[in-house]
Amino acid sequence: TTGSLTVYLTHYRLSDSASYSDSSDDETSPRDKAQANSKGSSDFCVKNVKQAEFGRREIEIAEQDMSALISLRKRAQAEKPLAGAKIVGCTHITAQTAVLIETLVALGAQCRWTACNIYSTQNEVAAALAETGVPVFAWKGESEDDFWWCIDRCVNKEGWQANMILDDGGDLTHWVYKKYPSVFKKAQGIVEESVTGVHRLYQLSKAGKLCVPAMNVNDSVTKQKFDNLYCCRESILDGLKRTTDVMFGGKQVVVCGYGEVGKGCCSALKAMGAIVCITEIDPICALQGCMDGFRVVKLNEVIRQMDIVITCTGNKNVVTRDQLDRIKNGCIVCNMGHSNTEIDVASLRSPELTWERVRSQVDHVIWPDGKRVILLAEGRLLNLSCSTVPTFVLSITATTQALALIELFNAPEGRYKQDVYLLPKKMDEYVASLHMPNFDAHLTELSDEQAKYMGLNKNGPFKPNYYRY
Amino acid sequence: TTGSLTVYLTHYRLSDSASYSDSSDDETSPRDKAQANSKGSSDFCVKNVKQAEFGRREIEIAEQDMSALISLRKRAQAEKPLAGAKIVGCTHITAQTAVLIETLVALGAQCRWTACNIYSTQNEVAAALAETGVPVFAWKGESEDDFWWCIDRCVNKEGWQANMILDDGGDLTHWVYKKYPSVFKKAQGIVEESVTGVHRLYQLSKAGKLCVPAMNVNDSVTKQKFDNLYCCRESILDGLKRTTDVMFGGKQVVVCGYGEVGKGCCSALKAMGAIVCITEIDPICALQGCMDGFRVVKLNEVIRQMDIVITCTGNKNVVTRDQLDRIKNGCIVCNMGHSNTEIDVASLRSPELTWERVRSQVDHVIWPDGKRVILLAEGRLLNLSCSTVPTFVLSITATTQALALIELFNAPEGRYKQDVYLLPKKMDEYVASLHMPNFDAHLTELSDEQAKYMGLNKNGPFKPNYYRY
Amino acid sequence: TTGSLTVYLTHYRLSDSASYSDSSDDETSPRDKAQANSKGSSDFCVKNVKQAEFGRREIEIAEQDMSALISLRKRAQAEKPLAGAKIVGCTHITAQTAVLIETLVALGAQCRWTACNIYSTQNEVAAALAETGVPVFAWKGESEDDFWWCIDRCVNKEGWQANMILDDGGDLTHWVYKKYPSVFKKAQGIVEESVTGVHRLYQLSKAGKLCVPAMNVNDSVTKQKFDNLYCCRESILDGLKRTTDVMFGGKQVVVCGYGEVGKGCCSALKAMGAIVCITEIDPICALQGCMDGFRVVKLNEVIRQMDIVITCTGNKNVVTRDQLDRIKNGCIVCNMGHSNTEIDVASLRSPELTWERVRSQVDHVIWPDGKRVILLAEGRLLNLSCSTVPTFVLSITATTQALALIELFNAPEGRYKQDVYLLPKKMDEYVASLHMPNFDAHLTELSDEQAKYMGLNKNGPFKPNYYRY
Amino acid sequence: TTGSLTVYLTHYRLSDSASYSDSSDDETSPRDKAQANSKGSSDFCVKNVKQAEFGRREIEIAEQDMSALISLRKRAQAEKPLAGAKIVGCTHITAQTAVLIETLVALGAQCRWTACNIYSTQNEVAAALAETGVPVFAWKGESEDDFWWCIDRCVNKEGWQANMILDDGGDLTHWVYKKYPSVFKKAQGIVEESVTGVHRLYQLSKAGKLCVPAMNVNDSVTKQKFDNLYCCRESILDGLKRTTDVMFGGKQVVVCGYGEVGKGCCSALKAMGAIVCITEIDPICALQGCMDGFRVVKLNEVIRQMDIVITCTGNKNVVTRDQLDRIKNGCIVCNMGHSNTEIDVASLRSPELTWERVRSQVDHVIWPDGKRVILLAEGRLLNLSCSTVPTFVLSITATTQALALIELFNAPEGRYKQDVYLLPKKMDEYVASLHMPNFDAHLTELSDEQAKYMGLNKNGPFKPNYYRY
Repeated sequence: TTGSLTVYLTHYRLSDSASYSDSSDDETSPRDKAQANSKGSSDFCVKNVKQAEFGRREIEIAEQDMSALISLRKRAQAEKPLAGAKIVGCTHITAQTAVLIETLVALGAQCRWTACNIYSTQNEVAAALAETGVPVFAWKGESEDDFWWCIDRCVNKEGWQANMILDDGGDLTHWVYKKYPSVFKKAQGIVEESVTGVHRLYQLSKAGKLCVPAMNVNDSVTKQKFDNLYCCRESILDGLKRTTDVMFGGKQVVVCGYGEVGKGCCSALKAMGAIVCITEIDPICALQGCMDGFRVVKLNEVIRQMDIVITCTGNKNVVTRDQLDRIKNGCIVCNMGHSNTEIDVASLRSPELTWERVRSQVDHVIWPDGKRVILLAEGRLLNLSCSTVPTFVLSITATTQALALIELFNAPEGRYKQDVYLLPKKMDEYVASLHMPNFDAHLTELSDEQAKYMGLNKNGPFKPNYYRY
Repeated sequence: TTGSLTVYLTHYRLSDSASYSDSSDDETSPRDKAQANSKGSSDFCVKNVKQAEFGRREIEIAEQDMSALISLRKRAQAEKPLAGAKIVGCTHITAQTAVLIETLVALGAQCRWTACNIYSTQNEVAAALAETGVPVFAWKGESEDDFWWCIDRCVNKEGWQANMILDDGGDLTHWVYKKYPSVFKKAQGIVEESVTGVHRLYQLSKAGKLCVPAMNVNDSVTKQKFDNLYCCRESILDGLKRTTDVMFGGKQVVVCGYGEVGKGCCSALKAMGAIVCITEIDPICALQGCMDGFRVVKLNEVIRQMDIVITCTGNKNVVTRDQLDRIKNGCIVCNMGHSNTEIDVASLRSPELTWERVRSQVDHVIWPDGKRVILLAEGRLLNLSCSTVPTFVLSITATTQALALIELFNAPEGRYKQDVYLLPKKMDEYVASLHMPNFDAHLTELSDEQAKYMGLNKNGPFKPNYYRY
Repeated sequence: TTGSLTVYLTHYRLSDSASYSDSSDDETSPRDKAQANSKGSSDFCVKNVKQAEFGRREIEIAEQDMSALISLRKRAQAEKPLAGAKIVGCTHITAQTAVLIETLVALGAQCRWTACNIYSTQNEVAAALAETGVPVFAWKGESEDDFWWCIDRCVNKEGWQANMILDDGGDLTHWVYKKYPSVFKKAQGIVEESVTGVHRLYQLSKAGKLCVPAMNVNDSVTKQKFDNLYCCRESILDGLKRTTDVMFGGKQVVVCGYGEVGKGCCSALKAMGAIVCITEIDPICALQGCMDGFRVVKLNEVIRQMDIVITCTGNKNVVTRDQLDRIKNGCIVCNMGHSNTEIDVASLRSPELTWERVRSQVDHVIWPDGKRVILLAEGRLLNLSCSTVPTFVLSITATTQALALIELFNAPEGRYKQDVYLLPKKMDEYVASLHMPNFDAHLTELSDEQAKYMGLNKNGPFKPNYYRY
Repeated sequence: TTGSLTVYLTHYRLSDSASYSDSSDDETSPRDKAQANSKGSSDFCVKNVKQAEFGRREIEIAEQDMSALISLRKRAQAEKPLAGAKIVGCTHITAQTAVLIETLVALGAQCRWTACNIYSTQNEVAAALAETGVPVFAWKGESEDDFWWCIDRCVNKEGWQANMILDDGGDLTHWVYKKYPSVFKKAQGIVEESVTGVHRLYQLSKAGKLCVPAMNVNDSVTKQKFDNLYCCRESILDGLKRTTDVMFGGKQVVVCGYGEVGKGCCSALKAMGAIVCITEIDPICALQGCMDGFRVVKLNEVIRQMDIVITCTGNKNVVTRDQLDRIKNGCIVCNMGHSNTEIDVASLRSPELTWERVRSQVDHVIWPDGKRVILLAEGRLLNLSCSTVPTFVLSITATTQALALIELFNAPEGRYKQDVYLLPKKMDEYVASLHMPNFDAHLTELSDEQAKYMGLNKNGPFKPNYYRY
């Protein structure tokens, strides 16, 4: 089950400066190198530990936009809520992740880390972590064999046994479950970020095989809003602009799907002067679209007139070959939803059509009559392929992960059973409150009298679980 | 428990034409009049059955904006899903309600009706219903005694026993529960629309005394969005304009509370060029406010600069006398939240302040130094006092009520226990889908393949229950 | 030439409180009454000078929103720039006008005043002015004969000769020109506000008969933006809401004409969730519409689908009977442009159509097949008929008038010839700057170095005359 | 006067694919190469005529977004309005310019071309033009000597004498004026696009030395709106995102200057959830800012709180060193106005501050206390340095240039004197109308009756010259 291995594109920007080293690097596999950090430790495996200084600078810059974690370090440093926690982690390894890991360490945890994706590791950052004493096993461009080797090295350490798992995709969890069942059984908690990983956990739970409390942080309110609505509101513009330089004003756009992602895309494009209509299967979302000022149409009704077609449905074959045949010359087609099957790109790989790569991530697919359709990122996720995830969004995620670890590690006996949980609302609210200073936002506090009147605790949670935000 | 009796203002517009008759009417109490409709029935009690024709016109106009119910009549008329239903109803009696009642009748139900509010009855509409054969007991300007007399007449009919209750506020439910326990026990369902009524039902349920399945339609997704976000987005502008003629452009506004109501107010005022900031207690909502472009402040920080102060918190004493003392000359203060305690209006009724009524619903409260604060609706709900609820919003509510009745009446044995339920998502979606034609909106249908891929039924429900919309 | 007499509707709100007196008033014509103010003067003619106190309160309230004039009083009171000015004025007589008149007096002018419209006079305000010593000749409900009698009494005062004219519509100017040519010739200036009056002045100028410098304040930048763009952005919503309670969200709207008024209407409706398209004859404005996100269509293409049709063209027969025949049931049709000929209302007054007045300013026009078209204000201006002009907009106008009078009265010999002029840009900017405090707006000042770099005077004007804003 | 030589950055995107050849190219100066196109002509000087095929593809792609020119070719091809025109041109040489040149040729003109900028030439495009028979003298990376050599070769052709000049910056015009006075005197017209070039023409005209009619196309309505308002509305987001990946939601932004550029920036940032305030010196623009919902502040009042500072004033030292000292850590500072002096960047090049280049166009300027200010493009124009100009905007410009040439070349004797003119409004409208099909926009035509009523010609112009749009 190497699902996450196949993710073709990384979603973290490798800053321009970081890439200086790639070409000059030697070709030796990190597994075959003998490296030690300046303290003499060799308990890590990265591309080149000598790049630590460059990675450290990246981490410092990231820290500036992740003040929530820095603030968490300060607030919780005295009590060390993670003292005794032995965390194995498997995530993208970037400057932002480094800020998370170093926060966990500052709160008392011991951490060992590996990458959830074979392409996304920032080598300099991994070097900086290794130099600082965190055992990291990851580099950019791992083979599949490397990938599992790294995971194993991360878990399998003589005289050390993990009691917490932080995972993104479920591969680490799966490996521990299969290879180290005794570690798995004794773990105090699993925190999982991805849709895929959460899905696996629910399956495990259904099968009665989940013997550890797990926390699904993917569905926490704050993270969801930022990953989808707020992030896509900006990245749809950015992704389209970087690839095509298209002018938005007056463009006719159809957005397929009016969930959080679709809402973000529509609101941004409308604001820039595009004329936007939507398609929906769900009448409640469709009604929201109406009230927000978008015509709700079937794709077939409008496909001939559109300048831009965007999918955000989570479904497959939302734009079919038949529709692509009827699309007009010069139309831009892209996917903001999931996977790469929302647009039936496979159907375009047929002999009568010519593909012309005009820029990175931009193909002109040319019909026999000369019609060109501009396909972005070959139908993969535009926001991940052709835009970047702002550090602020990553800060929300990382803070959520840290609080989930703290919650699971410190929960009194019995609060969490062997099941999958959502982050408690109070912790979700705490994630948000840690980000208030970024906006110089000042919360109002309830008076005793008001708290009583509302039937609320003054420190929250402030809403019932079913509240829709 | 006559909570709903004390609602001072009706929230349904009495159209200008309808008021012609009020002054010419005699002063005799309807209870003392002998009236019969043209078919000879006297099983009703209204102000003047002869006004039926005028009421009929009002109903016909309302029907034009309530095509969802008309469409429901058509779709369900053959199967008569309410055949056998004997419904007692207690709601505002307006043209829109009449469309609901006549829909229930068209679907096979027998109905008897009374008013949930002593001021809100449109006499002509009640007359039209009576003329058409619906036993109605209601008139504008009932006394409290009249109110309960009407409820009793509605329920207590020789040889007829209600099996369904449709309530708004819980007074009818309470009356049946207390006075006709045998009717209560045998009822097949209760549908309740109001916050107050729902609260009472949950209390009954907690106390183990709810021996009937009840449906809370107040919290259905569609109704909530329309009652709060969409309705307030328009009524904040309307309410301010009708009362004060204020120009919105460039005005500094603080909105206290960024829930659905606050979101609606903020979005509308920002769009009209006001400079809006918000106060919040909940960090998640505060973060949403930041991302939507509003400064999050404490009221004390900005109170001196504001041109307009709006409360939408559901809390009390959100604007205190101390703050009102510091507010600037000419500032408009109003409440969009609940009740009339969000602004501490009571504190303004003190001898050193002069109240000057400058228009209906508009008071100048004048400080000794000449400062004037413009208080709207004496701190009661601006949207209900100084604006109107669009028929479309009422159509959403009425359709939700009708579908809840159908669901409860037709549910297979065992689906609903003696508890309070939310409207099933599929019915909620059906409410929305019935309103699609109003917008000429065309839903997309899942292909079999797509439905399978998504793990969905092609006819919905399309979202998990916890989906946040 | 009594054009302005026929204006059917006033555009100043008579506040509710002001109407108290109308019913109790006697029927005697003011011309037949002997009245004196408390100082014994009888040089005025109003409905009832005893209402002065009520009028004074209205004026005081208006002053609060007209701080620009109050500030002008303060800044210019010492130098009395209008000392020696003898101004005859003919405008609507409202609380806002009173603030203007009393400002002119405070700056040294002697004023005599009359009404430019037979319906729009606020009697209490006229009383307050008379009481304070300003000779006013005006009341609500003048006959045509009264109208000219009042103008004559205003101009024709023994031992007093006007040297400045402030006019709105050109009737006063015309009367002086015709009846008192010697006054006309010796006048130092005319200030005219209305399109009609300006048109008359240009004709006079063309004919070589304008022997006085005149200032067209109608076309000053600030006034234009407020009269059209900013005012209509708010009044379109207000006018539609007060008359029809329509919900804007999701409504399909066509706006005919994308000039300043159309731009205001479109921006407001779009912001409220309506789906708006436009018609245009001018490709530049049409291109602006595209870039602002509106589809540019021909009316015939969309007329069947629209929920609301709004005209703002300044043209006639923009909506024809043929199109009205094809419009859909329940469509709202209204005019924000000019006159009452944009919609071919005359064509609807034909025997096969039934008109039903459902509220003040709202007619249902009913086709033989039952289709209803909702016509507002019988096709007259919605913003003037069914909404109000905010005091702030009137403040802009009044300040512009005051500055134009000061400029003409103080201009050095030779600056102005016998011609029609636009307000100098510097004065236009001064109007704007006097309104800065309303918004707590702080202007930046050029440093000497910057002014030199830009080739500008530090005090303005800041833009060339052709600047488009 | 080599002003335009010093433009450091090009404002046309060199598409990725075009750069393939640069590295493989030899280092020989084009002036030293003997080249001929496939027809045997050597009357050109480009980098490598063999790259023609790649340039042709670029031109074909550009044609797809420049349908206005293609449509002009079709409409005017029969009458060949430029038959006899001998045009020398000096502009950026890009795919979009090629579409313009080939349009002029299609309309009958003979053209010779050179580059107005030593860096901006797309070599492949120049090759394609040369191959097709247009004498082009330009390559990327000219020396200053090359630059003037190219201009001379362009003008000085045995047996051929230019009668029209199309210029961008005034260098070509200056050269002809100085070196070929007899050509200058006999020319039928000059069309100039840039602010600088227009300024030079006005100076020439003032000095009585302009013996040719010249047309200032820089100030035509359509071009102005697109160059400033519409272009900057999009490029501010694009420029910030590409350089910093900043998330806009909730960011505090101050925009200095609320002209067209400032209006574009503010509207885009507000729409993306930023909290925007402005500074202004002109009270009219400031009032517009108020009505659009922006607080008007002095920079000093807010400088400490801002996350992003943007200048768009056309002035210098708008952000001073003193203010930069007080700015907060992590603040982004950039210029959308003109030149590179709006921000006092020179003051930052001092020993106590450290500059760190973190990406192309992004410097961290670091204060002794560790504070970092993120300076973009070293204070040069963000939109030109870090974003791209959409082809659609270039299409507006190119079409305006083509129509200006046609107008001047075909104007009846006496219409244009030896002066500088604005493009006639009718031609300006025609530019716009040629772009209607891009938006599938349908103009309404006046009926005869309507045209008469409005006093307009049915074909325009539709507005007086002073109309503000």
